[in-house]
Amino acid sequence: MERKIFLNERDLPTQWYNIVADMPNKPLPPLHPATKQPVGPEDLAPLFPMALIQQEVSSEQYIDIPEEVQAAYRIWRPTPLIRATNLEKALGTDCKIYYKYEGTSPSGSHKPNTAIPQAYYNKQEGVKRIITETGAGQWGTALSFACNQFGIDCEVYMVRISFDQKPYRKILMNTFGAKVYSSPTNSTQAGRNALAADPHTPGSLGLAISEAIEMAVGDEHTKYALGSVLNHVLLHQTIIGQEAKKQLEYTGDYPDIIIAPLGGGSNFAGLTFPFIKDKIAGNAVRCIAVEPASCPKLTKGKFMYDFGDTQGYTPLLPMYTLGHTFTPAAIHAGGLRYHGASVLCSQLLKDGLIEAQAIQQLECFEAGVLFAKVEGIIPAPEANHGIAQVIREVNKAREEGISKTILFNLCGHGFVDMVAYQDYFDGKLQDHSFSDEELTSEIEKLEALQP
Amino acid sequence: MERKIFLNERDLPTQWYNIVADMPNKPLPPLHPATKQPVGPEDLAPLFPMALIQQEVSSEQYIDIPEEVQAAYRIWRPTPLIRATNLEKALGTDCKIYYKYEGTSPSGSHKPNTAIPQAYYNKQEGVKRIITETGAGQWGTALSFACNQFGIDCEVYMVRISFDQKPYRKILMNTFGAKVYSSPTNSTQAGRNALAADPHTPGSLGLAISEAIEMAVGDEHTKYALGSVLNHVLLHQTIIGQEAKKQLEYTGDYPDIIIAPLGGGSNFAGLTFPFIKDKIAGNAVRCIAVEPASCPKLTKGKFMYDFGDTQGYTPLLPMYTLGHTFTPAAIHAGGLRYHGASVLCSQLLKDGLIEAQAIQQLECFEAGVLFAKVEGIIPAPEANHGIAQVIREVNKAREEGISKTILFNLCGHGFVDMVAYQDYFDGKLQDHSFSDEELTSEIEKLEALQP
Repeated sequence: MERKIFLNERDLPTQWYNIVADMPNKPLPPLHPATKQPVGPEDLAPLFPMALIQQEVSSEQYIDIPEEVQAAYRIWRPTPLIRATNLEKALGTDCKIYYKYEGTSPSGSHKPNTAIPQAYYNKQEGVKRIITETGAGQWGTALSFACNQFGIDCEVYMVRISFDQKPYRKILMNTFGAKVYSSPTNSTQAGRNALAADPHTPGSLGLAISEAIEMAVGDEHTKYALGSVLNHVLLHQTIIGQEAKKQLEYTGDYPDIIIAPLGGGSNFAGLTFPFIKDKIAGNAVRCIAVEPASCPKLTKGKFMYDFGDTQGYTPLLPMYTLGHTFTPAAIHAGGLRYHGASVLCSQLLKDGLIEAQAIQQLECFEAGVLFAKVEGIIPAPEANHGIAQVIREVNKAREEGISKTILFNLCGHGFVDMVAYQDYFDGKLQDHSFSDEELTSEIEKLEALQP
Repeated sequence: MERKIFLNERDLPTQWYNIVADMPNKPLPPLHPATKQPVGPEDLAPLFPMALIQQEVSSEQYIDIPEEVQAAYRIWRPTPLIRATNLEKALGTDCKIYYKYEGTSPSGSHKPNTAIPQAYYNKQEGVKRIITETGAGQWGTALSFACNQFGIDCEVYMVRISFDQKPYRKILMNTFGAKVYSSPTNSTQAGRNALAADPHTPGSLGLAISEAIEMAVGDEHTKYALGSVLNHVLLHQTIIGQEAKKQLEYTGDYPDIIIAPLGGGSNFAGLTFPFIKDKIAGNAVRCIAVEPASCPKLTKGKFMYDFGDTQGYTPLLPMYTLGHTFTPAAIHAGGLRYHGASVLCSQLLKDGLIEAQAIQQLECFEAGVLFAKVEGIIPAPEANHGIAQVIREVNKAREEGISKTILFNLCGHGFVDMVAYQDYFDGKLQDHSFSDEELTSEIEKLEALQP
């Protein structure tokens, strides 16, 4: 049996899977904050090219991947599916553990799966420049690479805490040709407001989104791009799960449990949605989203309408949220420091089609170091959350005296995140829990936004 | 046609190729510096396990790869062979360019190919601890991983300039469980001598070797390990070229030109030796070793007996050298800052079976940034030397109006070397050439060492 299962490039999926077509309860519409009426495509036109807006509202089950996008995917895709034989041995389990490894991409994570089509559709509609934000730096790196592939300028607002913790990420973006700013900046009203409130703010993904949107809407040749949360972003990521399904077919296995970390929801959706299709059809597969205990929107947030950004520039989205004014603790898994979960993932959680778990960062790093030693891949801090949950499930299976087949998304490598590991070894990392009061105070402010 | 050519794990080569069997002129023996007589296996026994010493002096054409080593190789091997379609397009060439990508390994380079068997054979002979040096940090990372796989302690003396330039490398080694020291240290006589001569010395690979040897020979349960230069190290790396040959068979192509950077010689040997076998048999393939112009042992050094380390602890080796007291310029390609070339590569160069080119670092980084943008992989600074030579050959082919098939070794990724790219973008990198006088002064001192 091979440890690594590769697909040929000619087996690359040629369509994305749109889970909206199969959801028993369709997602609620995004609302205009002033009118509380559903937003239409025209409301999104200043931000996105029409092709992406159409995907955002589509209910077609499958959407064709353009040939040019397939060609760019083939730079690194299909990605390997790996049987974690060494991890199984280290854990002394007879569970079968597989991981889909998205770290072989240009940016080292799953993010180029959507950056490539986003850059492509923008180019098709004559856009000259794309502005975006980035948390951990993965999304900004991916979009920098994708924009360069299609000859578009790229500017990135990077959350300050990541900008400071991850200098290599900025250099990566520069290498791919992008301009990078530490957010909050003084260039936007959103940034100036944040700096006035707290000059030392670590920033947040929500705030960086506000800055990027503000800069993008002011120029007719410029659009905005988002690396997670939105329906079309999750759609593009389904190439991960479709590949994984084909690869598992070669092994004869089908997962009992699928695990992925959840920040906005795109890597979780990418791996799980093609399997949730089966679950909706009656399969018993369990899909578990893992979030940091220091940003527990799925396990301790509320399902409400809320803004996607701190400043309130986006439509109101129906999602599990801690409130758009919530500031997560300054943990190293920057990609998971977001106040809300995508509309699609939120609806699926509400309907009991997926589960959620919150884990503290020390347990995650312990899991990541073990994984690195035995499997030979340093995981990104975000990915460590998935591994920690895998170990929990393995221990549970052992206690119950059963064997499970577990699939998880190793959504990125950690070569550019080594400072996080140093801080872990130096004992500088702490677990962090918010009190119930801290968690509810920002959520209560959302009452006025509800329709 | 697929861009990426994968082999199945069951197609992993089961033997290493030993070029000594086929060399028209066998390598000269290493000499004991006191007696000027050939060293025997017993002279090397304090440093290496007997299995590796036997490989060092073997003239068998093929040597079996133990099953346990094959199993560890399968953690990441076989590595992909990639047709650089995007680079070809960017260069506007009808040359075919292929690269063997060794960056998918645990340390991000080709180094684990020898670290794994070295750790394995040491374990077999009861060794508890291995001490080594590392230049750019690739070798140290590889050995850290390999030692952990086989349950051996690992300590690494890291050249100070790399220790300072590449903090992430140290953390990687720590993550895999190794202890890391900035060389020169005060723990060894060699280190104390160097610090007395120049407290601000950037260190060198030769000096770090001296320190590691000094620490290793003092303990009966401790051995030393070297990441390049020696015959057994080059032997282990031939898995690269053997895989590449099989992969090229699927394409129907055979290279006209093979290119790889050369520091000590192991990644160059790994890719080229299985092809030089064909050249010795009459094939016209050209194999080009690329060195930094700031450490030009192949193009401006002399073929003489010299020490492998600065202090003179090793046997005398017959090789192209700049003198063991030569200090290369402080360039970012730390893995290429070594005063000599391996005995096997030196003999092949002397016999006209390989060629050599020296390139300045600015040309190399320019090539690397282009490669990153179009092919989606950030190359290690060492690897940039190969890419720069590929571009030179493409330009030459264009001038001559011919098309060539070029294969090169992308021996590692640069995710952990981003500071080098930042310095490049900031204009802080300079080209450096030594005067003829500077180059000959250290070589002249070698006269007394000749037999």
